[in-house]
Amino acid sequence: MDKYSVIISNFGNRADRFLTGYGEDRTLKQLFEAAQRTEGLGGVELVGTWHITERNVAEIGRLLRDHGLKLVSIIPDHFATLVYSRGAFTSKDPAVRAQAVRDTQVMMDAAAELSCDLLNIWNGQDGYDYSFQSDYQVERDWLVEGIRACAAYRPEIRISLEYKPKEPRTHSFLGTAAGALLVAQETGLPNVGVTIDVGHAFVAYENVAESVVILSRAGGKLFHMHMNDNYRLWDDDMIVGTVHTIEYLELLYWLDRVGYQGFLSLDQYPYREEPEDAIAESIGWLRALRTIVDRMGAERVGELLKTGDAAAASRLVRQAMMDELK
Amino acid sequence: MDKYSVIISNFGNRADRFLTGYGEDRTLKQLFEAAQRTEGLGGVELVGTWHITERNVAEIGRLLRDHGLKLVSIIPDHFATLVYSRGAFTSKDPAVRAQAVRDTQVMMDAAAELSCDLLNIWNGQDGYDYSFQSDYQVERDWLVEGIRACAAYRPEIRISLEYKPKEPRTHSFLGTAAGALLVAQETGLPNVGVTIDVGHAFVAYENVAESVVILSRAGGKLFHMHMNDNYRLWDDDMIVGTVHTIEYLELLYWLDRVGYQGFLSLDQYPYREEPEDAIAESIGWLRALRTIVDRMGAERVGELLKTGDAAAASRLVRQAMMDELK
Amino acid sequence: MDKYSVIISNFGNRADRFLTGYGEDRTLKQLFEAAQRTEGLGGVELVGTWHITERNVAEIGRLLRDHGLKLVSIIPDHFATLVYSRGAFTSKDPAVRAQAVRDTQVMMDAAAELSCDLLNIWNGQDGYDYSFQSDYQVERDWLVEGIRACAAYRPEIRISLEYKPKEPRTHSFLGTAAGALLVAQETGLPNVGVTIDVGHAFVAYENVAESVVILSRAGGKLFHMHMNDNYRLWDDDMIVGTVHTIEYLELLYWLDRVGYQGFLSLDQYPYREEPEDAIAESIGWLRALRTIVDRMGAERVGELLKTGDAAAASRLVRQAMMDELK
Amino acid sequence: MDKYSVIISNFGNRADRFLTGYGEDRTLKQLFEAAQRTEGLGGVELVGTWHITERNVAEIGRLLRDHGLKLVSIIPDHFATLVYSRGAFTSKDPAVRAQAVRDTQVMMDAAAELSCDLLNIWNGQDGYDYSFQSDYQVERDWLVEGIRACAAYRPEIRISLEYKPKEPRTHSFLGTAAGALLVAQETGLPNVGVTIDVGHAFVAYENVAESVVILSRAGGKLFHMHMNDNYRLWDDDMIVGTVHTIEYLELLYWLDRVGYQGFLSLDQYPYREEPEDAIAESIGWLRALRTIVDRMGAERVGELLKTGDAAAASRLVRQAMMDELK
Repeated sequence: MDKYSVIISNFGNRADRFLTGYGEDRTLKQLFEAAQRTEGLGGVELVGTWHITERNVAEIGRLLRDHGLKLVSIIPDHFATLVYSRGAFTSKDPAVRAQAVRDTQVMMDAAAELSCDLLNIWNGQDGYDYSFQSDYQVERDWLVEGIRACAAYRPEIRISLEYKPKEPRTHSFLGTAAGALLVAQETGLPNVGVTIDVGHAFVAYENVAESVVILSRAGGKLFHMHMNDNYRLWDDDMIVGTVHTIEYLELLYWLDRVGYQGFLSLDQYPYREEPEDAIAESIGWLRALRTIVDRMGAERVGELLKTGDAAAASRLVRQAMMDELK
Repeated sequence: MDKYSVIISNFGNRADRFLTGYGEDRTLKQLFEAAQRTEGLGGVELVGTWHITERNVAEIGRLLRDHGLKLVSIIPDHFATLVYSRGAFTSKDPAVRAQAVRDTQVMMDAAAELSCDLLNIWNGQDGYDYSFQSDYQVERDWLVEGIRACAAYRPEIRISLEYKPKEPRTHSFLGTAAGALLVAQETGLPNVGVTIDVGHAFVAYENVAESVVILSRAGGKLFHMHMNDNYRLWDDDMIVGTVHTIEYLELLYWLDRVGYQGFLSLDQYPYREEPEDAIAESIGWLRALRTIVDRMGAERVGELLKTGDAAAASRLVRQAMMDELK
Repeated sequence: MDKYSVIISNFGNRADRFLTGYGEDRTLKQLFEAAQRTEGLGGVELVGTWHITERNVAEIGRLLRDHGLKLVSIIPDHFATLVYSRGAFTSKDPAVRAQAVRDTQVMMDAAAELSCDLLNIWNGQDGYDYSFQSDYQVERDWLVEGIRACAAYRPEIRISLEYKPKEPRTHSFLGTAAGALLVAQETGLPNVGVTIDVGHAFVAYENVAESVVILSRAGGKLFHMHMNDNYRLWDDDMIVGTVHTIEYLELLYWLDRVGYQGFLSLDQYPYREEPEDAIAESIGWLRALRTIVDRMGAERVGELLKTGDAAAASRLVRQAMMDELK
Repeated sequence: MDKYSVIISNFGNRADRFLTGYGEDRTLKQLFEAAQRTEGLGGVELVGTWHITERNVAEIGRLLRDHGLKLVSIIPDHFATLVYSRGAFTSKDPAVRAQAVRDTQVMMDAAAELSCDLLNIWNGQDGYDYSFQSDYQVERDWLVEGIRACAAYRPEIRISLEYKPKEPRTHSFLGTAAGALLVAQETGLPNVGVTIDVGHAFVAYENVAESVVILSRAGGKLFHMHMNDNYRLWDDDMIVGTVHTIEYLELLYWLDRVGYQGFLSLDQYPYREEPEDAIAESIGWLRALRTIVDRMGAERVGELLKTGDAAAASRLVRQAMMDELK
């Protein structure tokens, strides 16, 4: 039984680099109400400083209880704060690097207090834009040290690294599933793993189902999932399944097969849509796609995978979609 | 009622630049038998010199009749012959340019004799690989002149230009729907139009449904359709719908709406699949997708398009796919 | 002798969809001072409503004179205003469409008063994000009508359409050089042409030199140039030449050969750079690249292009870069 | 002092999936003569079964000596032989998997006999084309086991895994630098490392200089380099530096800094060029680019990298290119 959550800012306002304010600003309470209104959501992710600080933890606890939502993760803001605009864990400024660690630890304390065991780290500013701008050797050391310092601080909290090939930098240090896994391993700590954002994986030309397996077989390193869709070349953050229907089917099959128990968490940018509608649609698609995967059946898929017959794979998917399998 | 055809070489052997001969060579008769065996095919496209020459027209006529297949188009070979390896209509050698025209005209004669009114021109070698290799001004003149000379030769035969951004050259002169239309218009002749190969359109980052409209509204310039799928970055020539399911739905809707009457012709490279299976799967998908579009209904879609509501679009597609619309 | 200009907002603050305010806000006067300080700039482009309105035309005139800068174009804001967030010329709302035309005409009046004959139209919101969201037939009519209404209003002002494949929409109606040219031609008015933004052309997988020729040969339809660089997959708006050095060389050769007389106007997003430095660097590169092209020599290039010899092209470029040609 | 080599088949005939035989077939002796004629080449790579078999090792030894060339690596043919068309180490057929290991070991013996300590493994058929075609879990086990069996066979021979995101499969198991490194690590054997083909890295949207560092810092896992250029979206196998000049500069800087001692080996597909010219041009570019990097100077670059100032980086590169640094 899949569990759905959302990054709660999906219900708030949206901007791009040209236009600020496609929608309307909403209070924290309004964001929680929107989440509650959206049928199917069992949890939320909160962004550090946007929604949660060391001072409003009790209020957040009340909001979660009142709206019947679980705290799935906290995402420290390493990407939208001016101090991190030239890097967080890999800033050239040691004071900024220290602050990135400290800000993360504060959010780990908050998470612990709220019975949440997951921090999702999307350090989008840790990367570079131009050739001859970054000292890959030194800065990679900083990256590993920073993450290690966070993970060591509270071993009971899992640190999940969300990779993305680019944006806001033209190149991110954590760019692919394998690349993020290498960094997680280099920390030497068991509570560091990886988040797959499906759209980011598409941009990296990953087959996301294969990425699930790569992370999973490396000692259970698939910690979290962010769901959205795009046209493969940019992180368009669209409604799930509206572009890549078939790859989503395969993803759901493999999440089951590797025993993923976490939430499927929506991470969209509904610039010109009503956020509640866009989130509800993604849940609708995830349920529909699960129905199709169930029709395919684990046994039939298992037999199919032994053959590698692409036409047979096409037929099974198609007949399941059209509900023609007996 | 959609009509399906195939480029008959799809049933033959396949090579890539590394490996020659994924499958087996087949005689012309075997290719026709394979087409006949594949349920749903009403026609075939033949490649000039590979399948049809000025000397075997009568034999081709018999093969078509015997196997109950219509000749949908002839594709002159401007791409797999050494003489054209540095360009056909745009070769730096005037003798080669003249030969490209003459070879095309010979195929036009053959088409006429076989009651086929369509030549599909895929001049894949007309382009360039490096900066400072091509004189865009002069060579574009040659391109227009060559196509015009063909089209003028037999006004009753339609010349359809198949565009593709790249491969085998790193850049093709006919790279996009709009670019090919400009060249067609520059010939000044009414019997020059454009073929959309869906996979090529994906590689060009076109929304193929929009390309259908652009060509159609320019005076009925959508002459022909080639169907296949890919991962958007390269012409993988895969089974229809196995990657881009939703965009195919929208394509079928718009082909109907602009009144396209031609064949949906399969153009795949089933490197590692049984060709008959791969072609049958594409027909299976095209029928399934047509069923889903029919469920959506032209009226409902028409109302939807007036709103531009993306979540409502997602919902209609999803409910049609799951057969939840009353 | 190349002439350089800049969109004046390049000197102001920068945002992306995550972080607002990489730099500092600057007053109009400060923007002009920054332009004046930057050695080599002869002109500026202004964005409608951001910098210029119907009420501050006289002030703008003074600022231009005082800082010794020519007004190269006005860019009406069709992309950063909430009312246009779902389209300007192609909004589903007829009142918005009318406003888009009227806003443009107001800027045409301002341009005329300031002896500027060029409006650069980048209608980035005219497009769509999802399948089944846009009525390509109807909305393309609106697009052509809107542009025609602007162009007809003042035949002495040139309307230059800046194309871009995507962003902020996942698909723009004006996506490629050829596509924009088709729309310009469909208006039937001689004062409608096309702007090439080099980075947008890279994203469209165009060889930008070829695009220069396509527009130029269509009756002088290359109206304007925006210069920047990127990694080919997204509009990174970087310093000229820092990624695609060789293609820029070829571009400069062809701009000369087609007799382009306009400005080379910088359009960058120096998120993490000092804007003056980033603009000065682009001018530095454009001068350096012009020096290399001059070393190659029009005659040598002309001879080379008759051969299509890619290795010889590589050698000529390389030896010119290393100043090894006698 | 950089050392240059070439995969000797670069001098032979070229095909793409459409056209077989752009050039002419050459005997092994003619290939060696072409390599000898090309100024600057110090070594060659040979492809297993194409050039070298267990039966012609002595002849190869003589050819190497007679032409003054070092054997840089042997590349077993895992990609152009029908038996491997559906996978080598990951074939569903255990007999094929065993043969892939055995064929590799035979080449290791040949290498040892010829005093060559490097096998370059490009197992291009190990991957998949469609969703639901591959069992990622099981096949990844096979991949690791196969490579381990080779590496264990002769610990004194280094096994270098050449990654590539796609082609001939739509997805390769070894797709990125990080992904290949994970597999190398999973074998648990010290003589398994990674080859960077620069063009493959571009297609993976890697900054190749960063990939050099990632592999190098993981215990000296950068075993080998293949050099060529492309338009970033496909493995065009073009002359070095003709597209990505600046990134090549940064690459040369970092190869030096990590102490890479191996050959820079050319791996091109000069479809329409004279192979000798195309290879000579790449060597010409590599020398020119090395000159520019030398002008920049390790000390100046070191200082620059401490600042992360992109405009300063641009300036240093530009002034070095124009020889304006004192």
